[in-house]
Amino acid sequence: MRKVAVIGCGQTKFDEHWDKSLRDLSTEAGILAIKDAGIEGKDVEALYIGNMSGGRFIGQEHLAALAADQAGLLPIPATRVEGACASGSLAFRSAYMAIASGLYDIVIAAGAEKMTDIKGPDAIAALMGAGDSEWESAIGLTFAGLYALMARAHMHKFGTTSEQLAMFSVNNHKNAALNEKAQFPFPITVDDVLKSSLIADPLHLLDCSPITDGAAVVILASEEAVKKLKVENPIWVLGSGQASDTLALHDRKSLTEMFATKVASYLALKQAGIDINKIKLAEVHDCFSIAGLLALEDLGFCEKGKAGRFVEDGNIELGSTVSVNTDGGLKAKGHPVGATGISQIIEIVEQLRGCAGKRQVEADIGLAHNVGGSGATSVVNILGKEKK
Amino acid sequence: MRKVAVIGCGQTKFDEHWDKSLRDLSTEAGILAIKDAGIEGKDVEALYIGNMSGGRFIGQEHLAALAADQAGLLPIPATRVEGACASGSLAFRSAYMAIASGLYDIVIAAGAEKMTDIKGPDAIAALMGAGDSEWESAIGLTFAGLYALMARAHMHKFGTTSEQLAMFSVNNHKNAALNEKAQFPFPITVDDVLKSSLIADPLHLLDCSPITDGAAVVILASEEAVKKLKVENPIWVLGSGQASDTLALHDRKSLTEMFATKVASYLALKQAGIDINKIKLAEVHDCFSIAGLLALEDLGFCEKGKAGRFVEDGNIELGSTVSVNTDGGLKAKGHPVGATGISQIIEIVEQLRGCAGKRQVEADIGLAHNVGGSGATSVVNILGKEKK
Repeated sequence: MRKVAVIGCGQTKFDEHWDKSLRDLSTEAGILAIKDAGIEGKDVEALYIGNMSGGRFIGQEHLAALAADQAGLLPIPATRVEGACASGSLAFRSAYMAIASGLYDIVIAAGAEKMTDIKGPDAIAALMGAGDSEWESAIGLTFAGLYALMARAHMHKFGTTSEQLAMFSVNNHKNAALNEKAQFPFPITVDDVLKSSLIADPLHLLDCSPITDGAAVVILASEEAVKKLKVENPIWVLGSGQASDTLALHDRKSLTEMFATKVASYLALKQAGIDINKIKLAEVHDCFSIAGLLALEDLGFCEKGKAGRFVEDGNIELGSTVSVNTDGGLKAKGHPVGATGISQIIEIVEQLRGCAGKRQVEADIGLAHNVGGSGATSVVNILGKEKK
Repeated sequence: MRKVAVIGCGQTKFDEHWDKSLRDLSTEAGILAIKDAGIEGKDVEALYIGNMSGGRFIGQEHLAALAADQAGLLPIPATRVEGACASGSLAFRSAYMAIASGLYDIVIAAGAEKMTDIKGPDAIAALMGAGDSEWESAIGLTFAGLYALMARAHMHKFGTTSEQLAMFSVNNHKNAALNEKAQFPFPITVDDVLKSSLIADPLHLLDCSPITDGAAVVILASEEAVKKLKVENPIWVLGSGQASDTLALHDRKSLTEMFATKVASYLALKQAGIDINKIKLAEVHDCFSIAGLLALEDLGFCEKGKAGRFVEDGNIELGSTVSVNTDGGLKAKGHPVGATGISQIIEIVEQLRGCAGKRQVEADIGLAHNVGGSGATSVVNILGKEKK
C-alpha cells in the first residue's frame, strides 16, 4: 500500500440553499478544492462521490458522472458510493484505496446532498431509506425514534441524563459559533436543549441534527504526486477502517453500542499503529446527541457507559482531553448526509494544517468517525501531519 | 496490480418476482455464488453491490450492509456503488481493484434491483434519475425518447433501418430461448418487432428492454487465493476500463456515438494487451436495440455507421464473427438495472468455463460492456481462460 495525503479541500457553507441546486453546490466545493490543491482539472484521474438519496431528494441518481462533467473532468471514471449517512467517508476511503493500490495518483473524493427541495416529512421518509425498510420504516419508526430507543436504553443501563445528552449539543454549538461554514453558528445552553420540543422522548429538538444542503470535496494524492507537486502541507492518511452491522436496530446484540464502530476503529488504529489515547482531535458522528456519546465510548475515548460523565466533566471541549467536533459537528455545522463524511475530513485537515482560525487546537493526529443509519455502516479515518 | 479471477457465480432467474423481496433475491444469488466458489462466508473480506435506485423502487438505500447481513458476512466492509444501469459493472470493477491492489484476497461483487414493486409510470420516472433531472427529465423525456433520438440520428446519418434494429432484438430472443434464467425465453421475428407498439418513434416495444427483478453475484479472488483454494476453473480479469460523459444527451458532440464506451474499451483492451478482433464473445449493453448497434461500433467490432449491416449479415449470431449477447441480452434476458452488469460477467464466465449448455460458443476471451443512462457511464471488462 502506498502512502496517500489530502492536498486540497473545499466546501460550501452548510445551510438551506434555496437558490442553489446540487450541481451548483458540488461545483462550488470542487472548484475551491482544486484551487486549494494547486492542481488543474486535467491532473485528476478519478472521482468518487458520496450521496445518500439523490433519487428521492431531487430525482437525480447517476451523480458521479454529473459531478465529473460539471467540474470539467470528463472522461475520467466517476463512481457514486452510498452507505447512508456514511456515504462521504466511503467516497474518501474509495479514493484512498484507489491511490494506495497504485492505480491512480490524484483522485477526488466528494460528498453532496440537497435535502431541502422536498417537504420535511418526505425528507424524513427518504432518510428512513437508511434503516430497514421492511422491519423499521414500514412500522413507522423514524431515525429520531431509533436513536431515542438507544438513548433510553443508555439512560436505563448507565444512568446517563438528559442534561448530559444536552451538553454534547452545547459543545457542538459553542464550536460552530467559531465556524463560518456552519448552519447554526451560535451558542446554546443546556436549558435551551431541555426546553426545546420533545421530538422522540428523551430526545429534544436540539439533540437532533438538522436537514441541510451542502457539498464538500477533498483531493487525495500519492506520495509521488505530493513530491512532484511540491505540496507544502500534505495531511497524510494514517489509517482507514470500515465495518458493517445489521440494518435493523432490533437485530443487534446491544442497543448501547455500535459494533461496527468498534471494528472500524480497531482496524484504523491498527493500521495507523497508534493507541486511541494519542488522539486529541476527533470528529464524531452525532446525528443525535446520544450518537455522539456512543461514539466516544465505542471509539475508546472513555469506558462503556461513562460518556455522559466524560462530557459533563469537560473532556470534549476545545483544547481539553480530546477536542471533539471542533467544527460544530452534525448538530450545529449541519448534516447534508452524503457530504458529512468529507466535511469531517476537511475539519481534521484544516486543524492539522493550523488553518482553523478561532477554533484552532493543538494536534498532530486527528480522527474522523462517520456512521450510516443507526450503525449498520461505520467508517473511521485517521490523518496526521507526518507520514507514519 | 495483482492478477484477479472470478471463482464463483450465482444469479436468480430474471423475471417479475411478485413473491420475492430484494433481500430474498440477493440472498438467493449470493448463496449460489458462495456454493459455486466452494468457499465459506468467513472467507469473504469485503462486498460491493451495484444498485441503481433502491430508494425509489423499494424505499431502501444502504443496501450493502443489508446484503452483507443477509449473507451472514458481518462485520465486513460493504459498499453500494451506483452509476445508473452500469452499477453492476462498477461493483465488479470496485471488487477487482480492491483485490488487484493487494488489500483483499476474496471479495463479493453483487448487483440487485427490484423494479416491479412500484407502478410502471413510477418506474419509468425512477429510471429517468439516470438522465439529467434538470434538463431532460424535467421536460418530459424518457429513456425510450432519448434512445429514439439516437436511433433517428443514426438512421438519418447512416441509413440504418428499422429492420436492422429489429434484427438485434431477434438475435437476443433467439439466444434467450436457450437460457432458463431469461425473462423472455422465446424467439421473435423481425415482423413481430415492427408490428409491436410504437413506444418512441422509431423504437417499437420489442426494441426496448423490460422492467425486471433480479440479482446476480460473483466472487473474485487473488491469484494466491485461487491457488490456495485449488480452484479448477478460474476465469481471469484481463482488463477493466471505465469512463464518463455528460449526463445530458444534448451536451454531447455526437448523437451517434458513445464516447465513454470508446474510452472504456480502449483502456480495457490496452490493459488486456489485445485487439478487439480477437474477441469472439461479447455481452453488449442493449437497453434499446439502437444501443446494441452503437456498442458494436464504439467497441470497434465494425466501423462507425455500419452496425446495421453488420447485424443484418449475421455477424453477431452464436458462433459467427462475434457471438453477441449469448444469454439474451438486456432485451430478452431482462434488465434489473443494478444486476445487469454482474449478470453479463456471469454469462462470460459460464461461456469460458464451457458451462453454457445449448448456447455454448467457442471462445477463450470474452468482453462485457455496460452503460449507465444514455452513455454518461461506460464500463468494459475483459475476461479470459488464461492469465495474461
